[in-house]
Amino acid sequence: MSERPLLGQLIDALRCLPGVGPKSAQRIAFHLLERDREGGARLARIMADAMTRIRRCCRCRTLTEQDLCALCTNPHRDGGLLCVVEQPSEILAIEQATDFRGLYFVLGGRLSPLDGIGPEELGLDLLDARLSGGEVREVILAISPTVEGSATAHFIAESADRHGVSATRIAHGVPLGGELEYLDGGTLALAFNGRRRL
Amino acid sequence: MSERPLLGQLIDALRCLPGVGPKSAQRIAFHLLERDREGGARLARIMADAMTRIRRCCRCRTLTEQDLCALCTNPHRDGGLLCVVEQPSEILAIEQATDFRGLYFVLGGRLSPLDGIGPEELGLDLLDARLSGGEVREVILAISPTVEGSATAHFIAESADRHGVSATRIAHGVPLGGELEYLDGGTLALAFNGRRRL
Repeated sequence: MSERPLLGQLIDALRCLPGVGPKSAQRIAFHLLERDREGGARLARIMADAMTRIRRCCRCRTLTEQDLCALCTNPHRDGGLLCVVEQPSEILAIEQATDFRGLYFVLGGRLSPLDGIGPEELGLDLLDARLSGGEVREVILAISPTVEGSATAHFIAESADRHGVSATRIAHGVPLGGELEYLDGGTLALAFNGRRRL
Repeated sequence: MSERPLLGQLIDALRCLPGVGPKSAQRIAFHLLERDREGGARLARIMADAMTRIRRCCRCRTLTEQDLCALCTNPHRDGGLLCVVEQPSEILAIEQATDFRGLYFVLGGRLSPLDGIGPEELGLDLLDARLSGGEVREVILAISPTVEGSATAHFIAESADRHGVSATRIAHGVPLGGELEYLDGGTLALAFNGRRRL
């Protein structure tokens, strides 16, 4: 045998999946080979395709294999509402849980000058151009309430202000079913600061 | 958009992996697309290759892309010792944990006539032919001590007996660090029945 056995190569390659160690990689490899070759072959085909063809939407920077993603080209979405998120996965979560019918903009992170993440890396020039276009009425910031997240939110709010767009931020506070005594202090402080009149 | 977005297809296809539900599938898809495209592309390539090329070794029935697996063709292994296991994954476990230097034979299950699993499905004819060849001195049965497993082990022991090959079975009992009070009754009973003189 000149080359490494293919089974060993497969087990090694599976470790690129998040949270998969040597034992899980073995288990996955044997499961696919012994019980679901068809599913494995299909996954391999789609994964190869996805890794080469999926890129960023020109308009909202989410992941798509088109120039414009399915949301940006959907005529039934309200272009007057723009929700700004950090990651593409957050769009899925919002779509599954809420009845938000506007559009999105994906930053891909938060402002963090020390790590070399400035306005350009987050596409804030693209977002500024969009806010200046006159279509957006309200920009909703769904950005985590960390130090960098707040800096990013303020940066965008200023840009919205310049173009006469109203900027809002989603509420941060006690989650449904969250018990106060087990909640972290930061969230509890946010909940108190963000209290609203009944 | 006439076709489903590729990202959604990838998330669906990932659910063929064992233990991966909708949320994990999303997490894996975004991880690969945003952080490890190279690993994902490599995995897709190797997986496609493995699903089509890996088959059973003609001699020991383990998984390999060759006619004969790396163990069967290794001249440094002792052909006089033959360890019979149920699944190919068990070979890896034995190779990693023990200093066994013999060869293997993979059944792929246990005798279970009600489920249509007879001697032929387990390759017991192939095993019988091998035991009759004169090379094997001892056949070591590493088969689980269930009802079907024991029936399978007795079937093989009889075949070994006919060909003058000694048949042994790996010890079943209390595992290292196992506390008697928390051990299941079946294992404890096995440990008592399998006691040895000091």
